[in-house]
Amino acid sequence: MKHVIVRNTPRPGPDAVRLLGELGVATVHEAQGRTGLLRPYMRPIYPSARAAGSALTVLCQAGDNLMIHAALDVARAGDVLVVVTTSESTDGMFGSLLADSCLAHGVRGLIIDAGVRDVTELAEMNFPVWSKAISAQGTVKATPGSVNVPVVCAGMAINPGDVIVADEDGVVVVARTAAAEVAARGEARREKEAQTRTRLQSGELGLEIYNLRVKLSQLGVEWIESAGLEPD
Amino acid sequence: MKHVIVRNTPRPGPDAVRLLGELGVATVHEAQGRTGLLRPYMRPIYPSARAAGSALTVLCQAGDNLMIHAALDVARAGDVLVVVTTSESTDGMFGSLLADSCLAHGVRGLIIDAGVRDVTELAEMNFPVWSKAISAQGTVKATPGSVNVPVVCAGMAINPGDVIVADEDGVVVVARTAAAEVAARGEARREKEAQTRTRLQSGELGLEIYNLRVKLSQLGVEWIESAGLEPD
Amino acid sequence: MKHVIVRNTPRPGPDAVRLLGELGVATVHEAQGRTGLLRPYMRPIYPSARAAGSALTVLCQAGDNLMIHAALDVARAGDVLVVVTTSESTDGMFGSLLADSCLAHGVRGLIIDAGVRDVTELAEMNFPVWSKAISAQGTVKATPGSVNVPVVCAGMAINPGDVIVADEDGVVVVARTAAAEVAARGEARREKEAQTRTRLQSGELGLEIYNLRVKLSQLGVEWIESAGLEPD
Amino acid sequence: MKHVIVRNTPRPGPDAVRLLGELGVATVHEAQGRTGLLRPYMRPIYPSARAAGSALTVLCQAGDNLMIHAALDVARAGDVLVVVTTSESTDGMFGSLLADSCLAHGVRGLIIDAGVRDVTELAEMNFPVWSKAISAQGTVKATPGSVNVPVVCAGMAINPGDVIVADEDGVVVVARTAAAEVAARGEARREKEAQTRTRLQSGELGLEIYNLRVKLSQLGVEWIESAGLEPD
Amino acid sequence: MKHVIVRNTPRPGPDAVRLLGELGVATVHEAQGRTGLLRPYMRPIYPSARAAGSALTVLCQAGDNLMIHAALDVARAGDVLVVVTTSESTDGMFGSLLADSCLAHGVRGLIIDAGVRDVTELAEMNFPVWSKAISAQGTVKATPGSVNVPVVCAGMAINPGDVIVADEDGVVVVARTAAAEVAARGEARREKEAQTRTRLQSGELGLEIYNLRVKLSQLGVEWIESAGLEPD
Amino acid sequence: MKHVIVRNTPRPGPDAVRLLGELGVATVHEAQGRTGLLRPYMRPIYPSARAAGSALTVLCQAGDNLMIHAALDVARAGDVLVVVTTSESTDGMFGSLLADSCLAHGVRGLIIDAGVRDVTELAEMNFPVWSKAISAQGTVKATPGSVNVPVVCAGMAINPGDVIVADEDGVVVVARTAAAEVAARGEARREKEAQTRTRLQSGELGLEIYNLRVKLSQLGVEWIESAGLEPD
Repeated sequence: MKHVIVRNTPRPGPDAVRLLGELGVATVHEAQGRTGLLRPYMRPIYPSARAAGSALTVLCQAGDNLMIHAALDVARAGDVLVVVTTSESTDGMFGSLLADSCLAHGVRGLIIDAGVRDVTELAEMNFPVWSKAISAQGTVKATPGSVNVPVVCAGMAINPGDVIVADEDGVVVVARTAAAEVAARGEARREKEAQTRTRLQSGELGLEIYNLRVKLSQLGVEWIESAGLEPD
Repeated sequence: MKHVIVRNTPRPGPDAVRLLGELGVATVHEAQGRTGLLRPYMRPIYPSARAAGSALTVLCQAGDNLMIHAALDVARAGDVLVVVTTSESTDGMFGSLLADSCLAHGVRGLIIDAGVRDVTELAEMNFPVWSKAISAQGTVKATPGSVNVPVVCAGMAINPGDVIVADEDGVVVVARTAAAEVAARGEARREKEAQTRTRLQSGELGLEIYNLRVKLSQLGVEWIESAGLEPD
Repeated sequence: MKHVIVRNTPRPGPDAVRLLGELGVATVHEAQGRTGLLRPYMRPIYPSARAAGSALTVLCQAGDNLMIHAALDVARAGDVLVVVTTSESTDGMFGSLLADSCLAHGVRGLIIDAGVRDVTELAEMNFPVWSKAISAQGTVKATPGSVNVPVVCAGMAINPGDVIVADEDGVVVVARTAAAEVAARGEARREKEAQTRTRLQSGELGLEIYNLRVKLSQLGVEWIESAGLEPD
Repeated sequence: MKHVIVRNTPRPGPDAVRLLGELGVATVHEAQGRTGLLRPYMRPIYPSARAAGSALTVLCQAGDNLMIHAALDVARAGDVLVVVTTSESTDGMFGSLLADSCLAHGVRGLIIDAGVRDVTELAEMNFPVWSKAISAQGTVKATPGSVNVPVVCAGMAINPGDVIVADEDGVVVVARTAAAEVAARGEARREKEAQTRTRLQSGELGLEIYNLRVKLSQLGVEWIESAGLEPD
Repeated sequence: MKHVIVRNTPRPGPDAVRLLGELGVATVHEAQGRTGLLRPYMRPIYPSARAAGSALTVLCQAGDNLMIHAALDVARAGDVLVVVTTSESTDGMFGSLLADSCLAHGVRGLIIDAGVRDVTELAEMNFPVWSKAISAQGTVKATPGSVNVPVVCAGMAINPGDVIVADEDGVVVVARTAAAEVAARGEARREKEAQTRTRLQSGELGLEIYNLRVKLSQLGVEWIESAGLEPD
Repeated sequence: MKHVIVRNTPRPGPDAVRLLGELGVATVHEAQGRTGLLRPYMRPIYPSARAAGSALTVLCQAGDNLMIHAALDVARAGDVLVVVTTSESTDGMFGSLLADSCLAHGVRGLIIDAGVRDVTELAEMNFPVWSKAISAQGTVKATPGSVNVPVVCAGMAINPGDVIVADEDGVVVVARTAAAEVAARGEARREKEAQTRTRLQSGELGLEIYNLRVKLSQLGVEWIESAGLEPD
């Protein structure tokens, strides 16, 4: 297992990233066929957290944040750090000092399948983080790992340069090469949803809009007036 | 297993519902003898969430929200949706479009033993939700289920027309026929608590107010001055 | 197993407590060699919660809060309640009435390895709580326990009179006799961090500041330009 | 909340119970339309555990097994104890002494949404138990509850006299009045499965037997020979 | 934080250890007033696992088993290893090679609040282990820790030389100085239980033996014949 | 998102697979630099379960096992099924009928990041399964997915044709192209371990064999004779 720090990886186009970020996690997830969503235990550390950028992946040993420092050496403005560990951990591998460094280099946020600390400060700095845990438990800087290699984060495979979109609904990853197409599909979906929304707000039912009444009948569901019915 | 959508179920009286909602979950739970509380994993999606209404129950297959659409066909103003699945799931079965529809029909909130998405929008719309998970994972509209049948939600049996009370402390269910009586008992409790509160705020001890000093002695608890005591 | 309520335990000096509280959990945890941190499942009930004080320990039976009332009989201004149960529980053993009593006696907060309720009211009262769960489930006042004895809370041994520091990052305990020394070390660390922070904010890398570039090479990590690299 | 011990409840017919027990959990669950299954955290304490009988339901306070003793007063040969608690608990509420008493009265097993102890002895006695936890933590006999009332156990509503079927696959409940019909449907299913089994064992594919090849095509699934395909 | 390896700690008397081991976890836990039980997530790696001995405590960094090797330098026949980590971990810190070393020095078993591996081999060697997880994830030998210092394991404070008793019901710790007394109380309890057992096996009810019928009435529990009763 | 069933994928050499299977999970995991291990929640359904083979990957919708049937159409002798779902699920997607089909086509076992049922029968058939859950909850055959595409299973990326090794310690994946080399390294490790084992069994300490005594001193660990030492 050679450990490497890859300096250059292709980044996604900024327009696609910006648009995907505007669309948000739920719409992007739908637009790419309901794939790419990280496990729902990944939660933002403050309510309004929102980020979109190019994945700068970091593979660390549990309890060791050496490679996060290494990653900042090859970071570019617009990146989002994606940090995973070789075995499960909730240690607080990232805090406000590293966030200072991130902000100085244009890094837009952190997705970490482990713990984070200094969360009050991170919220004040408006540096968004999605993590598995909040923990003050510190880490060492002693063990090698890799930067900008493929990783698995919260159950999802992520490649360097993939687009990360994160908000209060969670985190979704879009393959770099599919970013523009997914963004386009997401925009179309958003427009269609706006129309549906107007109809729903006026009181029209989803049953009518999606033509589900027939489907329910075909599936054998019966409307009954009331009843001494038994539990289903 | 016949699947049914029951159009008419008896609803609880609006006065009892309103009063139970004012009293809040902890007081209502006490007022009915510490029963009816859903498991504490059910959490509101935003801090100030608060709702009370008549249970409109929905039994869905995991990963399928068809029956939520069906439920809105028989919803009435003052209802609270109670959604459960036939096997465990964290998928985001409900989002802002369905909330638009709910608001258009006077539905006051959602209790869902699964996942929810668009939580930023739901908070902005002030549509309260208590769920097991937040997840952008979308669902299909393909499998039959039932509406307004008895269900089990987060460990508690709920009948259509039961009163749902939900706030930051969790979710409690009150049997429709007991609503007025529980509300009355809750009000009495609230008044008594107000008196106790004044005494406690003035520095009087619970030991005195509840006459616990004697009880502690009877139970063999000793007051000692200090000591090189061993762990208990 | 004799049950006792110990009236007098040595308290830590107020200056050390105040300083430790200012430093916060992450810095204090570092300053005492990364020890004393409670398990990360202990979370504050509202975002800005922050407390520091002398541990007033309470050992209760699960589902019974009798001994919390007993503890207030021996509480002093500046104490923080530390409540544990003899077996695991999520019941809501503490609510706004007990918080009224705490505030009347100068108790600064609650650390409870169980559940809490009335969390909206507690936030309004600005009474900080760190707990394992939020649950409206009430408890009885029937079973003996002890006050001011050594306990284990969320995986950490805590003695009466130890310093408790708690904020959004979690909860850390400092031995009473070590409080002044840990506070001094924490202050030194804070100053050093302030200098590091300035350098990081200006764009200098952690790799340079901590001299990690050599270390990475020694560990066999290679910088490569890019590549059709295989997953690590 | 009146606490009651109901002496007489209708029991299911012994033939239906016997047959349902033979069919086992998976088949019975299928035969009643995939309903009635308890949450999968309910596990047998030893591999060969297997039981079927009439539900004798017991509602206890967490940490208190008084009502299990009360239940044995109204137990009949062929019953299976179904024990739940008013709030979550893993305490060991049942051990080998209670199992002695159960065996003396013909009780066939225990389903408990809490903990159990003496599991080595219980296995030696061949007294089957399905529980949420194994824990030596003992309980008191101090708080009232009820026997033979409707309960919710591991997410499923259970009425006294319902049929409980339990094996290594988990626990399923069948409504008393549906027992004979579900048993008949289960038997039919078993016969059909035996035929399918023979075909599958001979190498025939499920694709052919269930006619799924066409379905896959209709769903847009493509067979491809191999490929530099991208992740789905 | 100085790291130390303590060579000599007082050990408990062998007769008390042997007797406590015979009595088993549930009886010992009762005999010392229902204290000392580790959290129930600690499970044996094979069904018949059973051990009793003197606690040889080991404090390791997560992901590092250096100090287990150090502990064997001061181990004595009759010890049981008690291994904890400074932050949560499921890594497999112990395997069959370390078990070989344990057996060569008379160590009777392992209690580890982390992971273990080679479990098939460990079962074949009849070396009993209670752990939080089974995981092949290996560890390094790089970070200092301590041996024979007080630790917290699975929620319980353990001192070097305390008696560890472990079987299928879990793990319980008895203070060294209390070992003989707890053993004596356990033996008395065992004899009394033998008598109760005979009565229960003959069909006598716990209600009679423990005189609970009166208690139930005092608590307001009513026996009713049957009924269209409502859920409790 | 096109759904595909890939007929032909390169398989690993049978000798490497056989040898990796003999070496077992812990040794293979070490031999490839402590990578490739699935999360430890994946557990065998019976103690002696053991398997090694070529990954036949299956991507299903949660609650739908259609694609497992499709996978058997392209299965070859020596394959191990690796089944994952698009969102989290514990449903029992696989039972004894599918195992019959597997055995008829030479499939050696199942790794499933979901649930399994008929576990008693599967153990009797000696068909090994590693799963996240055991559950009788059945599934439908209605939704498209893919076969022999890259998947993420229990936190690890797996490609079709990778080698799966599974035993009581868990599940590890070896890249197809690295199989022979990892097997060779594993064999060397096994031989070295055999020598270490002999020395450890004779009473020699790991401290001596691995030369750790000096390291402990360098790390500042002190041997002390005994002491009134304080907790670390």
